[in-house]
Amino acid sequence: MLAPQPVGLAVILAAGEGSRLARQGKGKPKPGVLLLGLSLGERTVLACMDAGIRRFVVVLGHEKEWVRSHFERIAGARNCEISFVESPDWRLGNGASALATKEIVGDSPFLLTMVDHLVDPQLIREVRSAAVPQGHIGLGVDCGRDRLFDVDDATKVKLEHGSVRRIGKQLDEWDAADTGVFLCTCALFEGLATAASRRRHGLSDGVAILAERGAVQAIDVTGRDWIDVDTPEAWREARRRLLSRLSGKGEDGFVSRLINRPVSTRISARLSSTSITPDQITVASFLIALVGAALLATGKTALTITGGLLVQASSIIDGCDGEIARLKHWATRRGAWLDTILDRYADSLVAIAITLAYARLHPGPLAWLGGMAALTGFILASYTTKEYAIRHERPYPNDVLNRLKRRDLRLLGIGVGAVVGYPFDAVLALGLLSHVCVVGILIRGWRLGSGK
Amino acid sequence: MLAPQPVGLAVILAAGEGSRLARQGKGKPKPGVLLLGLSLGERTVLACMDAGIRRFVVVLGHEKEWVRSHFERIAGARNCEISFVESPDWRLGNGASALATKEIVGDSPFLLTMVDHLVDPQLIREVRSAAVPQGHIGLGVDCGRDRLFDVDDATKVKLEHGSVRRIGKQLDEWDAADTGVFLCTCALFEGLATAASRRRHGLSDGVAILAERGAVQAIDVTGRDWIDVDTPEAWREARRRLLSRLSGKGEDGFVSRLINRPVSTRISARLSSTSITPDQITVASFLIALVGAALLATGKTALTITGGLLVQASSIIDGCDGEIARLKHWATRRGAWLDTILDRYADSLVAIAITLAYARLHPGPLAWLGGMAALTGFILASYTTKEYAIRHERPYPNDVLNRLKRRDLRLLGIGVGAVVGYPFDAVLALGLLSHVCVVGILIRGWRLGSGK
Repeated sequence: MLAPQPVGLAVILAAGEGSRLARQGKGKPKPGVLLLGLSLGERTVLACMDAGIRRFVVVLGHEKEWVRSHFERIAGARNCEISFVESPDWRLGNGASALATKEIVGDSPFLLTMVDHLVDPQLIREVRSAAVPQGHIGLGVDCGRDRLFDVDDATKVKLEHGSVRRIGKQLDEWDAADTGVFLCTCALFEGLATAASRRRHGLSDGVAILAERGAVQAIDVTGRDWIDVDTPEAWREARRRLLSRLSGKGEDGFVSRLINRPVSTRISARLSSTSITPDQITVASFLIALVGAALLATGKTALTITGGLLVQASSIIDGCDGEIARLKHWATRRGAWLDTILDRYADSLVAIAITLAYARLHPGPLAWLGGMAALTGFILASYTTKEYAIRHERPYPNDVLNRLKRRDLRLLGIGVGAVVGYPFDAVLALGLLSHVCVVGILIRGWRLGSGK
Repeated sequence: MLAPQPVGLAVILAAGEGSRLARQGKGKPKPGVLLLGLSLGERTVLACMDAGIRRFVVVLGHEKEWVRSHFERIAGARNCEISFVESPDWRLGNGASALATKEIVGDSPFLLTMVDHLVDPQLIREVRSAAVPQGHIGLGVDCGRDRLFDVDDATKVKLEHGSVRRIGKQLDEWDAADTGVFLCTCALFEGLATAASRRRHGLSDGVAILAERGAVQAIDVTGRDWIDVDTPEAWREARRRLLSRLSGKGEDGFVSRLINRPVSTRISARLSSTSITPDQITVASFLIALVGAALLATGKTALTITGGLLVQASSIIDGCDGEIARLKHWATRRGAWLDTILDRYADSLVAIAITLAYARLHPGPLAWLGGMAALTGFILASYTTKEYAIRHERPYPNDVLNRLKRRDLRLLGIGVGAVVGYPFDAVLALGLLSHVCVVGILIRGWRLGSGK
């Protein structure tokens, strides 16, 4: 058997022309086609890196100089090791491209993938860690026939006892689709060489020869997301899938899910093609909240309405930093850190500004006392779940209390309050709500935590 | 070799009379002698449990009914399994007591310790996990000769090539002290039986026989704390050591270390003999702060001074909950959780009260704005290091920024400010200090966290 040790090397086939994506590529070869700010080549490398792979061999063919320098830039930016092999025969088919790596790869097992396949890192992890007998290769297969995008264009496989028996685009009977992610040994090269001697140069041709011998093990990755991005339709579908994954992993509040995310993901999709960083967005969102607070502090009707709108705008844009970070694999601890602390300052300033405006018209301590109480609630609402995470060594669940005290709801409430002329009432109500949630969370944590 | 598996059973010798501790025992036998709220017996069981042991055999002799029911209560309260063996010959010596466990222990290796030895759990862990050859026993030895308490009374050992060669109280030449913690196999019983046949019934006599054969391995635990609590002087020293360990493990702020801890540990020493729980102390500290805030809100001189004193009193008592929890092994997650959240509410209420009092005499928004800013700083000072711990998966270090923004300093500053007639100025100054620290910590976290 191969591996307990999962393989550490991935071969990426990037020699083809990809003419069907010409429009999306804007003149660049396929590995350079941009998808929400990152090229297909970079997304392939990043997916493999997320699955634990650090060394790559990229097969060059079409526009080899451009593609080489593109991947060299990726290696520098993403801190991985990329070697190159030129395939003189790449026009014959992707089997010829794969065969060109025979010398550089040697006897070690390796992962094989296509530059134009957008693959969930978990799929790669499963293929990478599979146990495949000596002399065999493994192929990640997707048995979810009904959920395949573009069935006609997919490479299909017929399975038998966990092995691939037949492979091809035109099979009448088939069980699963070829995801384009292989766990290979040098056995692959034997299959490809045999196919080539019969003047067949597709990767599938080589795999088919091995399959006839029963030497292609199916690795079931059904349910993991993958897509072959080789047509404009597939490109749009891939874009849609990437965007749909941005919605906060089940941690979003009510307002975030229904209002903020639909808007912020659209903004993020636009911003992804620029060089704007998540940290810049964090600061922009903070500054917008600051301007909003300044306008709210005036107490003048038109400015208060504008201020309220800016507060909600800031809340929406506050989602974009994380979205861009995830879309472009730019997430950093320090970005999340900056974001969280600035959010607390922004919330405090908004509460202070609204209290100031109200207290000017309503002298006496009551307004201020209410404002201070609300401010305490706003910060403690966030504080409490952090403390919970530390004390109980797991995040506080996204229950109703958690959703009701989240920032998305708070800022929308304040924004709406400002627009309809009751910003201070909104602050008081949301402050009270925050305290109720804090006490609820306090009780929940108390009940849970009788252990050491 | 014994173990990779550390032993799970401890034999506790609790048969002796311990007449020298009669005064501390107040009529109770030695295992029941109280030391800061817990009996020596309970402290021995808890130290072993902290080191991972869950099953015990207690040897009974003197006052066996009382001692048995005492340990049965411990087993119930601390959730461990305690069996009992009566030693008919306990008066002959502690070797006879140990020999009485031969049947119940059987062939399994076990830890052996004395009910009157107060031992650092780490020492037990090291003895417990040591590898000892078949047919040998292991003895935890302390080579720190200069730091021994009561050298005359200590059992000494002479070492040779990592083995104990001689053992006894009267050795002329010796290298280390016997800590009273053994890792045993049934080999021990052979030694004890041989010694008994020579009419020698001390544990050391049996060990000496094994030592002559080279069958007693020395397990070096030098530097770990332990003390044989068999005299009033040793009892006082043990009490002193327990109290000295309460000072916040290097996490205390300046004020806490210099002012609060010296007072709070004295209070905790008193409280330890009552049944007052840490959670009750937490609530009491909160209520004292509440009363302090109410008095501060009046703005009247005498009441403000009293309020300031109460605030500092609350801060000192806020240390006692954790101290009692550690002293009596009563620490719970939920206790720490309640404490932290109530602390934030107490701080907020004090800031609000002082601002209210000041703003009554100084109308206009400035006082309130200052109060709100300070309040924000107070809560964020705590928030920031929590967030840091979550983002960076380690606690924020106890650097100057951390110490300057801690609650001990804040409440002392406010207390002193109130006493000298400037409570609001103190709030403003400490609020400003908090914000400076928050920004400093923000920058430090930013510099550190460029990774994912």
